[in-house]
Amino acid sequence: MASRTAATQDDLRRHNRARLLRRLHESGAATRSELVAFSGLNRSTVGVLVSELAEAGLVREVPGSAGQVGRPSLVVQPTPDSAVVTAVDLRVDRTVVALVGLGGEELWRREQVHERAGFTPKAAVRSLLNLLKQALRQAPDDSVWVGIGIAVPGVVKHPDGLVRLAPNLGWSDVPLVELVRAAVAKHFGASPPVHVGNDADLGAVSEHVRGVGAHDQNLIYLSGEVGIGGGIIIDGRALVGAGGFGGEVGHMVINPNGVTCRCGARGCWETVIGRDAIVTAAGLSAADHDVSDVVAAASHGNAEAAEAIHQAGEWLGVGIANLVNLFNPEVIVLGGHLRLLLPLVGGTVDRRIERALPAAREQVRVAVPALGGDSSLLGAAEVAFEDLLNDPITVLGRSAHARGA
Amino acid sequence: MASRTAATQDDLRRHNRARLLRRLHESGAATRSELVAFSGLNRSTVGVLVSELAEAGLVREVPGSAGQVGRPSLVVQPTPDSAVVTAVDLRVDRTVVALVGLGGEELWRREQVHERAGFTPKAAVRSLLNLLKQALRQAPDDSVWVGIGIAVPGVVKHPDGLVRLAPNLGWSDVPLVELVRAAVAKHFGASPPVHVGNDADLGAVSEHVRGVGAHDQNLIYLSGEVGIGGGIIIDGRALVGAGGFGGEVGHMVINPNGVTCRCGARGCWETVIGRDAIVTAAGLSAADHDVSDVVAAASHGNAEAAEAIHQAGEWLGVGIANLVNLFNPEVIVLGGHLRLLLPLVGGTVDRRIERALPAAREQVRVAVPALGGDSSLLGAAEVAFEDLLNDPITVLGRSAHARGA
Repeated sequence: MASRTAATQDDLRRHNRARLLRRLHESGAATRSELVAFSGLNRSTVGVLVSELAEAGLVREVPGSAGQVGRPSLVVQPTPDSAVVTAVDLRVDRTVVALVGLGGEELWRREQVHERAGFTPKAAVRSLLNLLKQALRQAPDDSVWVGIGIAVPGVVKHPDGLVRLAPNLGWSDVPLVELVRAAVAKHFGASPPVHVGNDADLGAVSEHVRGVGAHDQNLIYLSGEVGIGGGIIIDGRALVGAGGFGGEVGHMVINPNGVTCRCGARGCWETVIGRDAIVTAAGLSAADHDVSDVVAAASHGNAEAAEAIHQAGEWLGVGIANLVNLFNPEVIVLGGHLRLLLPLVGGTVDRRIERALPAAREQVRVAVPALGGDSSLLGAAEVAFEDLLNDPITVLGRSAHARGA
Repeated sequence: MASRTAATQDDLRRHNRARLLRRLHESGAATRSELVAFSGLNRSTVGVLVSELAEAGLVREVPGSAGQVGRPSLVVQPTPDSAVVTAVDLRVDRTVVALVGLGGEELWRREQVHERAGFTPKAAVRSLLNLLKQALRQAPDDSVWVGIGIAVPGVVKHPDGLVRLAPNLGWSDVPLVELVRAAVAKHFGASPPVHVGNDADLGAVSEHVRGVGAHDQNLIYLSGEVGIGGGIIIDGRALVGAGGFGGEVGHMVINPNGVTCRCGARGCWETVIGRDAIVTAAGLSAADHDVSDVVAAASHGNAEAAEAIHQAGEWLGVGIANLVNLFNPEVIVLGGHLRLLLPLVGGTVDRRIERALPAAREQVRVAVPALGGDSSLLGAAEVAFEDLLNDPITVLGRSAHARGA
C-alpha cells in the first residue's frame, strides 16, 4: 500500500499548481483567501502559483461582488477560452460532439444521427473526424486543444482504451484510441491525447465532479440502455479494477432461475431492468419501441405497461439494495431510461432498499442525473481535461492551438 | 476530486520518511539503492532519511549477503523490537491476542476461549485487558507501544470504530474504541490509539500487505463464519464507503425466491454459503457442528454431506462471478470455512466464474489465505501500525515504552 505521490520539490510545486487549477475548474471561481483555506498553503505561495497560472492564460483575476464593507476582493476564475477539449458521446443511434472550455463551460455542440447497421469503427472515426473539424472551427481564438474524450457503450480496457466489447455497436477489440489519434493527426498534423471510456464510468465522473454527487465521495451511476452499465466512484476515485472492467452491474445475477442473458448467464440484472426487457414485458416490440413508449402507455391506462413498469421497479430495488450493501454509497444516480422510471417506481424502490442493512441504507439516496442526458458526454470532457489538470503549464506548452489545428 | 496530499516542505520530508519506513515494514529489508529506485528520491535524500529513522531506532543497517563481486552492501532493516503493537481478533468463541513488532514479526500470542453467552462488551474488555497485560510483559526492552488493533465480527462505523452490529456476539452500538482506551488508560496510565475494524476488512488488509495478494492492487477477502463478510481492496486502498459499511457481500441477494435471512431479506448469499446453511443442508445440527464436520462426513461417503458441499460450491461460484463483474479484482481470497470448501468445489466454482464477462474473468484467480486463519489478527496489527507508518518520528516521540506501560 505504498504511496505513489510525488517526492521532489519540483513535483511539489507542480502538484500544488495543479491542485489550484483543478479546484477552479471543478468548483468555479474563488478568492485567494478561499484558495488559501482550500489548499493549506500560505498566502504568498498561493499568490505565486496563481500568478503562474494567470501568466499562462489559464486563469484571470477579476473584481468579485463587494463584501459587506470595503472594496470588492479579486476573484480567480478559470478562463474558458484558454484551453478546450472535444468531448464525444458515441451512442447506438447518434454521435454527439461538444466543445468544452476550461471550467466546464459547453461552448458548442452537434449531434449526428446514424444507422446502427453501417456504423463500423471505420465509419465512426470518419464521422467523428468530420464533427471534430466543425467543433474546432468554433474554438475561441488563441485557445489550445488539450484533449479528446470519447464515451463508448461498451467494455473498455484500462489504461489503453481498447474497446473490448461494445455489443450494441457490434464492435469487439477495437483500438479506438489509436484509430482516432491517427485520423486526427493525419488531418490536423498532430493529435492531442485521446481518452476512451465506458459511458457509465464517464457518467459517474461528471455527476461526481459537477452533478448530483458533487459533494459526495461515493457514487454509483447506472446507465439504462439496452444493457445496464455502471460507473462507480469510491472515496472520490473511479473504480477501475485490474483492467478497467469493473462496474458491470448489469451482469450481476439476481435471479438464477430467470431468463438467459445475451452474456450467456441466467438472471442478470439487465434481463429484468434493461430496455428490451421492459418494452417486451409491456407487450411492445423491442425493435420499434423505447421505455418512453411504455411510460406513455401506462399513463394512458394500459395495465400491461403499468405492470411492466412496476415489475421493473421491484427488480431495480433488489439490485440497488445489493449495491448499497456492497458499496455503502451516498448516492445512486439513475441514468438513461432508469431516469424515466424513478418518478413512477420510487416507492417500490424505497421499499426494497429497506431490506438493505440499516447502517448503509440510512446513508444512501437515489437520484436522477443533474446533467440530464449529458452525463456521459460531460464525463468525456472531464477525462479529456485530466492531463492539463495534472500538470497545467507543461501540457499547455506542448498543446497546439485549436484554431490552427 | 481534489487531492488531499501534503502541501508544504515539512509535509514532504515527513511524507518521504514515512514512505521509506512503510516500504521496509511491508516488504522487508532493502539496500539504499533499492530504496532510491523505489522512492524516486536521490541518493543523498534517501541517506538523510534512513539516518533519521536509524537514529530513532526504527531501522538499522547491517551487512547484506555479498554480491558477485566486492564487499557486501549494507541492508536497511526494520527493527522489530523498536515499536510494537498489540493485535486482537475477537471471535465468537475465543479472543486471540498477538504482540507484533515493526516489520510484521509476531513476537508472542495467546488465545482465551470464552462462552458466547456471557461475552458482553464489558466482559470482553476485561478479558482483553488481562491479555494485553500478559502481552506487554513479553515486549522487548525499550520497545514502544504504538497501537492496539481489534478485529470484530460485525459492522463497524468509520472512522470512529463504533460497533454498529455484531449479531453473533449479540452486540449493537458498542463504542469499543472508547471502552478499550479507557480501560487501558486506567490500568497503564495512558493508552496508545485503538483501532477497531470488521474482521473481513482486516483480513483483506493483511492478505494485501503481506499475503496472497501482496502483488495485487484489487483484492476481495471473504470471511466464512456464521455470516459471510467481505473486505475489499480497490487500487491498493480499502473500500470504506460513506460510513465504513461497504463490503457486506453476505447480504447480496442472489436468489429472491430463497429462504429468509436473519437480516430480513430473502435469498442473501449467506443463506446458501454461510456455516449454518451448509451444516443444516448436510442434515447436521448447526448448534453442535461446523463445516469441518460436513467435510469429514463427505470424505467418509455421506451423500447428504457431499451434496451440501456441492450446492454450496454452486452458490459460491454464482456470487463470486457477480463480484468479478462488479469489481474486476485480481484475486478473491476465501477465508474461514470457505477455505475448507475450495479444494472440494474448485471445479464447480470455476465453471460458474466462466459465466462472468470474459474480460474480467480472465484476470481473476481464487485463492486461500496465505496467512491461514490469522488474516484478521494480522490485519488488526497492520492498522495498529498505521499511525506510526504515516508519521514515524512524531508518533514514536509521543508513545510510551511497552514494558513501562
